[in-house]
Amino acid sequence: MSTELDLVIRNADVVTASDRFSCDIGVRDGRIAVLGHGLPRGAREMDASGLLALPGGVDGHCHLDQPMPDGMRMADDFFTGTRAAICGGTTTVIPFAAQEKGGSLKAAVADYHRRAEGRAVADYGFHLIVADPTPEVLKHELPELIRQGYTSFKVYMTYDDLKLSDREMLDVLDVAKQNNALVMVHAENADCISWLTEKLVGEGRISPRFHGLSRPAAVEREATHRAITFAELVDVPILIVHVSGKEAIEQIRWAQSRGLQILAETCPQYLYLTAEDMGLQGDDGYEGAKCVCSPPPRDPENQAAVWRALAGGVFSVFSSDHAPFNYDDPEGKKLGGQAQPFDHIPNGVPGIETRLPLLFDGIARGKLSLHQFVELTSYRPARLYGLYPRKGTIAVGADADITLWDPERRVRITNAALHHAVDYTPYEGIEVTGWPVHCFSRGEMLVENGKYLEPAPGRGQFLPAGAPSLV
Amino acid sequence: MSTELDLVIRNADVVTASDRFSCDIGVRDGRIAVLGHGLPRGAREMDASGLLALPGGVDGHCHLDQPMPDGMRMADDFFTGTRAAICGGTTTVIPFAAQEKGGSLKAAVADYHRRAEGRAVADYGFHLIVADPTPEVLKHELPELIRQGYTSFKVYMTYDDLKLSDREMLDVLDVAKQNNALVMVHAENADCISWLTEKLVGEGRISPRFHGLSRPAAVEREATHRAITFAELVDVPILIVHVSGKEAIEQIRWAQSRGLQILAETCPQYLYLTAEDMGLQGDDGYEGAKCVCSPPPRDPENQAAVWRALAGGVFSVFSSDHAPFNYDDPEGKKLGGQAQPFDHIPNGVPGIETRLPLLFDGIARGKLSLHQFVELTSYRPARLYGLYPRKGTIAVGADADITLWDPERRVRITNAALHHAVDYTPYEGIEVTGWPVHCFSRGEMLVENGKYLEPAPGRGQFLPAGAPSLV
Amino acid sequence: MSTELDLVIRNADVVTASDRFSCDIGVRDGRIAVLGHGLPRGAREMDASGLLALPGGVDGHCHLDQPMPDGMRMADDFFTGTRAAICGGTTTVIPFAAQEKGGSLKAAVADYHRRAEGRAVADYGFHLIVADPTPEVLKHELPELIRQGYTSFKVYMTYDDLKLSDREMLDVLDVAKQNNALVMVHAENADCISWLTEKLVGEGRISPRFHGLSRPAAVEREATHRAITFAELVDVPILIVHVSGKEAIEQIRWAQSRGLQILAETCPQYLYLTAEDMGLQGDDGYEGAKCVCSPPPRDPENQAAVWRALAGGVFSVFSSDHAPFNYDDPEGKKLGGQAQPFDHIPNGVPGIETRLPLLFDGIARGKLSLHQFVELTSYRPARLYGLYPRKGTIAVGADADITLWDPERRVRITNAALHHAVDYTPYEGIEVTGWPVHCFSRGEMLVENGKYLEPAPGRGQFLPAGAPSLV
Amino acid sequence: MSTELDLVIRNADVVTASDRFSCDIGVRDGRIAVLGHGLPRGAREMDASGLLALPGGVDGHCHLDQPMPDGMRMADDFFTGTRAAICGGTTTVIPFAAQEKGGSLKAAVADYHRRAEGRAVADYGFHLIVADPTPEVLKHELPELIRQGYTSFKVYMTYDDLKLSDREMLDVLDVAKQNNALVMVHAENADCISWLTEKLVGEGRISPRFHGLSRPAAVEREATHRAITFAELVDVPILIVHVSGKEAIEQIRWAQSRGLQILAETCPQYLYLTAEDMGLQGDDGYEGAKCVCSPPPRDPENQAAVWRALAGGVFSVFSSDHAPFNYDDPEGKKLGGQAQPFDHIPNGVPGIETRLPLLFDGIARGKLSLHQFVELTSYRPARLYGLYPRKGTIAVGADADITLWDPERRVRITNAALHHAVDYTPYEGIEVTGWPVHCFSRGEMLVENGKYLEPAPGRGQFLPAGAPSLV
Repeated sequence: MSTELDLVIRNADVVTASDRFSCDIGVRDGRIAVLGHGLPRGAREMDASGLLALPGGVDGHCHLDQPMPDGMRMADDFFTGTRAAICGGTTTVIPFAAQEKGGSLKAAVADYHRRAEGRAVADYGFHLIVADPTPEVLKHELPELIRQGYTSFKVYMTYDDLKLSDREMLDVLDVAKQNNALVMVHAENADCISWLTEKLVGEGRISPRFHGLSRPAAVEREATHRAITFAELVDVPILIVHVSGKEAIEQIRWAQSRGLQILAETCPQYLYLTAEDMGLQGDDGYEGAKCVCSPPPRDPENQAAVWRALAGGVFSVFSSDHAPFNYDDPEGKKLGGQAQPFDHIPNGVPGIETRLPLLFDGIARGKLSLHQFVELTSYRPARLYGLYPRKGTIAVGADADITLWDPERRVRITNAALHHAVDYTPYEGIEVTGWPVHCFSRGEMLVENGKYLEPAPGRGQFLPAGAPSLV
Repeated sequence: MSTELDLVIRNADVVTASDRFSCDIGVRDGRIAVLGHGLPRGAREMDASGLLALPGGVDGHCHLDQPMPDGMRMADDFFTGTRAAICGGTTTVIPFAAQEKGGSLKAAVADYHRRAEGRAVADYGFHLIVADPTPEVLKHELPELIRQGYTSFKVYMTYDDLKLSDREMLDVLDVAKQNNALVMVHAENADCISWLTEKLVGEGRISPRFHGLSRPAAVEREATHRAITFAELVDVPILIVHVSGKEAIEQIRWAQSRGLQILAETCPQYLYLTAEDMGLQGDDGYEGAKCVCSPPPRDPENQAAVWRALAGGVFSVFSSDHAPFNYDDPEGKKLGGQAQPFDHIPNGVPGIETRLPLLFDGIARGKLSLHQFVELTSYRPARLYGLYPRKGTIAVGADADITLWDPERRVRITNAALHHAVDYTPYEGIEVTGWPVHCFSRGEMLVENGKYLEPAPGRGQFLPAGAPSLV
Repeated sequence: MSTELDLVIRNADVVTASDRFSCDIGVRDGRIAVLGHGLPRGAREMDASGLLALPGGVDGHCHLDQPMPDGMRMADDFFTGTRAAICGGTTTVIPFAAQEKGGSLKAAVADYHRRAEGRAVADYGFHLIVADPTPEVLKHELPELIRQGYTSFKVYMTYDDLKLSDREMLDVLDVAKQNNALVMVHAENADCISWLTEKLVGEGRISPRFHGLSRPAAVEREATHRAITFAELVDVPILIVHVSGKEAIEQIRWAQSRGLQILAETCPQYLYLTAEDMGLQGDDGYEGAKCVCSPPPRDPENQAAVWRALAGGVFSVFSSDHAPFNYDDPEGKKLGGQAQPFDHIPNGVPGIETRLPLLFDGIARGKLSLHQFVELTSYRPARLYGLYPRKGTIAVGADADITLWDPERRVRITNAALHHAVDYTPYEGIEVTGWPVHCFSRGEMLVENGKYLEPAPGRGQFLPAGAPSLV
Repeated sequence: MSTELDLVIRNADVVTASDRFSCDIGVRDGRIAVLGHGLPRGAREMDASGLLALPGGVDGHCHLDQPMPDGMRMADDFFTGTRAAICGGTTTVIPFAAQEKGGSLKAAVADYHRRAEGRAVADYGFHLIVADPTPEVLKHELPELIRQGYTSFKVYMTYDDLKLSDREMLDVLDVAKQNNALVMVHAENADCISWLTEKLVGEGRISPRFHGLSRPAAVEREATHRAITFAELVDVPILIVHVSGKEAIEQIRWAQSRGLQILAETCPQYLYLTAEDMGLQGDDGYEGAKCVCSPPPRDPENQAAVWRALAGGVFSVFSSDHAPFNYDDPEGKKLGGQAQPFDHIPNGVPGIETRLPLLFDGIARGKLSLHQFVELTSYRPARLYGLYPRKGTIAVGADADITLWDPERRVRITNAALHHAVDYTPYEGIEVTGWPVHCFSRGEMLVENGKYLEPAPGRGQFLPAGAPSLV
């Protein structure tokens, strides 16, 4: 301890996934060097009295500057997206390097690095999206990329440009098993959706609210059951992403109780939005497009089931699934500047900055504990995606990614105050209790008293991922 | 009652799906005219003292003279098949008129009538197999055939030459809903099977016993769950055929408890055979090919679950799924005269004659009641497949299809004593208690004291089916 | 068939638990002698064209003239009670001969015979209530009574004057097992009820609606689970009576799916009443006392669950649990002429006459089939309580207990039109479709065109019960 | 950090409930003062290279020197019991101050303090056993004791001298709710056990192995369901202790999935023993008495279910339920020096020293993770029983209760090598991987290289408990 500390955060009320203790945090070279009382003076000092010191958030599911088909464009790139993340208490993001059908996965990764470099202000890893598991991809590209630090990949059971057949799912899961990677699954039955969609569209039922009717819970439940079966047959863990409600939860619980390693993720939209937000009963206005995402928001009973499952350990991860499409934009929800039939509206809602406060608010309401909050939003995604122990905790040796929360501060969410580049938030007007007031990334203060300090774009580092840690 | 009775069965101990009563049965013009004590003398008299009078069996799932791909041929045609049925107490059979991919459904029906006419000795209806639901089939052929008395059709979720996509399943179910027909589903996941099969074959694991490993219970369970979901979305009943064990049963029970009309069928092979019959642990002999069917037989715990579900009302129908392939035959199990890798062995086991005695044996063992026996083997299939009240009961107005059972007779099953044209039975050597000693079809005695009376081929009548009665 | 028939019902559209057929019904000496077309002329002729001929109802759970503690008195004796039954299409009733704590069971039976004789107009059997299973009762009285034709007995898990300890339950179940009898269980946890009641009463919450809060579904569910466990340990079937909703149903389904013989009964009050009928939210008026029964009515979601379970085979019996307490009566709901705290209100609602029409109405609404109606209300109770084949069906040899229903008749239920001696019905004003217009008991017409023909009190016969038939 | 450190453990590979990090641990005044690299020299130095540093175990369920009825005596007092605990890596124990029926709870606590003082070498808290919840106990003694640091109490649903009625259970749970305490429940149905026991004894089936038959899984499952219902009605968390297998687990999972706070504990005997250890099929020898405990060990399938539930988060705590009765002892298993009928054998097995190694062995076998081990054996019991953050973790400010494990060391368990005063271990001969080689309590080294350093009896401190932390 001869060398001077770069930063000492005094009187920190530290909360990790399991522990809570009061001490000073000594940082050197971007890492936590020492935890104790009465640490020697650091080059920089910060008094955290009255605040909670939490590990910076890890957003394990967000979309930034992802190439889009059909004239769509994401509003957030790595700069605006990670800026918003940082301002919302998230210091690590893991967006998706997406293969196109017919394209190379390695090329997608290379392209995605170009998009991130020089722009990211938060650290970042990459998930892969496997949309075309050719023999080349399965035998060479994927195994090589896994070795290079891309240890998680997502597959889709729906969306024409992304979906895999059952057979392709099995092949991809097998690669994951052989190479110790983790597969994330978007579980909805494509054929059911297209069948229901054609029926609705054929009846002229095209306003945004019919998006929900085209993807009822049974469609998600079925695909969840099917994905579980694939995992069981291949004998490999999977993570079901963005679970929307009780029917899928029932399947996941059932699998978990049988000893299968079925992990699950949910997102703020399933806690705060309902089908009514896509258009109240009989309301065919287009504002509902702002809340169109897949799976769609359900109803209050399903929201309650998701809260309950969060507290009950069914979910491992709470992510944003940030999908930044502008509302009033010819490349966003109003494609070509026009209102669209529901099946042409880009799917997804923004949420990278609001993710943590929206969940944190549940603590005061008795929905989950502080430790569960840290576990779901930082610790567990860091472990699953091979970034632990650098990320996900406050412990000696970890990166000094620390967010200081004021647990009492009440904030009303407005898009005007957010830092993403999207022209709306689906959570406009919601008031939450608790806010990340200061934020450090590798010991560097990026947010102070809620003010973004404008660090240099490109300071964010790429994080090659290690093997997934499932428990 | 002025006209003379053609036949009086005296002192009958009649058992129907719900009732049991002693009386004389008076038959006129092939139908039951009167039930009572002390009926006037009939043209023919039969004393049934000491025997049970049960409605003739209805085999709702059997394959006879069905055109086969790849050099395979069924050993039983309508003559030998219905002869065997009659000798086993079954007076009505419902085999399948199968569409070929690219072919017409109506043509298949016409062809199938040609195969039946002049040969059948038992009455028969037809199920359809929909293998290629083109717009023509969906819009015209199917609705027209339903109106003409083909009110049930089977779809496959596996087998390359038969399987439908999820989308096609939904379309077929929708036709059933619009036209009040019943869809029977072979529920196994095709891609999982092919993936597992390639893996096994790639490892040189090709003997018959690996058939079971290529189609584990999870593969059946998944497809069952999926089919249930389709039925739920379309809001139409379905019948899951040949359910093999507890995992699929669990799905069916779950659907039933939610109020969905999910019906189910099982077969003797799931009560009497196990995976070991396809090859004992480590035994790679080819004899096991005799028991290769799909889904494959499981294990004793699954057998017990099937018995329990039979007694508990999960199943509506108990059928043979008679699939008559010779063992020692270049067109049968030994295709081209050679032992085959498991994935080339024709699937299915013979059982049209042994179906009823094998289930009846369970009565003495306390597995089910006499009424449940009648319900599962005659009453319920007659109702589901639109043949009730002509078939399925002993009541005034019904066809005089009556089987007189000696409930005490012990019989050891041997292929030598059976009347089908297959060169083996998988039940060789099994001893059962209870045997159908006399059999009447429309008042005509066809079996007397176990002896087949050689009625004229072609006496069997085609039965156009009415709408399904589900309860 | 030389002897003349006493009665011929022409053109009957007969419906049994499983069958439906058209024929004439010939009756001789009170029994069905012959079923057929063109029967010879009988001494009495009845044309049933356009009507359904159903087996007379068997009410397997009703209370008539049962001695009551604490100044309470039942309004119906065997005369008025069976008169009402007959007018509602029920030709057999099975009320309870109730042992008092400290009293003899045989004495209770003898006393109860005295109450029935000379008064009953419908046939009747007796269940026993075992309230004090002393060694004498267990070793001598019960086995002897079972041999004498009392093969079913009820035990209570609640009510101070009736409830058995767990140990006593086990002892009684063991007697049932040893002597082949059937135990009916009132399943509610006594201690939970008393604990909740004291709490409510202590808070001054004493109006009728708090009756529901003192017996929430969990209290019934727990006792149901416990009773199932006893049956499992003793290895004997039981029948859970008056099941009120989904929590108990879930337990029963679970037991049934494990292969346990757990039978269940429900009643009209769980299909037509809700907690609100005991007092709307905040309404503390005393009218709600009219609907106080135990378990209490729940809510519409539970009603739906009961309907679903009726259709799905969870329940074997549908009974009235007729408990005839006047409302405006010092010996009824207004004990001593005063409104009472909820825990002093006599429990139970009248319903012996409305039971069948209320359930029948569900047929038109697609809730169950005609066959299920017959099964639940006549066939199955006759079998369970050892009265089959005399009762429960229309078949050669059975008693000619036949109710002719007009399935289209719409009737608005009013107490003024009922034949019991109770001063209210909880179903006042409900309109049903379908009504029993004529009623025969052992070939004697007792109701014609809805008019009670005033047969002689005492014509009803005692029916010694045989062994229970469970399936 | 000016003051010298009393102890520095160098190069510690620290594992907590969630984290793992390498650092030096600095201890001052019995507490962890600092965690970091390159700490200044302490008064004492310890090199932990190659070892895991885990928080000392907290045994939340053990019996020491508890007054016994009927001539029985516990072999371990606070000295020998805590000595054994320390040698097995457990630095905190929480035995039971047990009220006698008719006795005072406060008196029991005072007596129990006398037994502990001057003898304990490990720190200790007390649970209470409430055997006689008189109004005095409910209104005064319990609330006062809770305020004084006794925040958890156990109730029994079986054992004549301990069991509570359902009503008493509800009253005790209500006190827990009002005063923020935690109730532990021994869930077995007393009446079922006595009924089965009498039957077995009546048939002369009295050898130890019949103990298992007298308490089948259904008996435990029923009481578990009932206890859950009480917790639901009172709306208070409970902890089901010593869960033995899948039937009880199913109930607990069901409750947890409904959002109820039902916690659960299991013990080594349900992972390592089976019914056969109480007497092999047909073996009526008395050796089986060594494994008689309640609930009894089940079978391998149940063992697997318990392992699975441990990994799946069903259980919060893994305790020993150490019940130290000698085998060859007139006050132990051989009461009066004689073999006893099974129902007279003192219930319980010793295990305070073997608890941790037996569970740790599961880590190498892939049954659970290191973090889960710490959570179940130290962190979670410390939180539940109000001892966190003093106990249960390695963090700044916590007591320096640290066990250094050699995760590779293979040890064969023999009673000769154990430190309790019991004359046998049920785990004799079992070989485990991983052993606690050094043990510190509040910074004092008590075990070095597996050698007990004989600290002064009485060094152990009483730990008044705070409020339970459930998550």
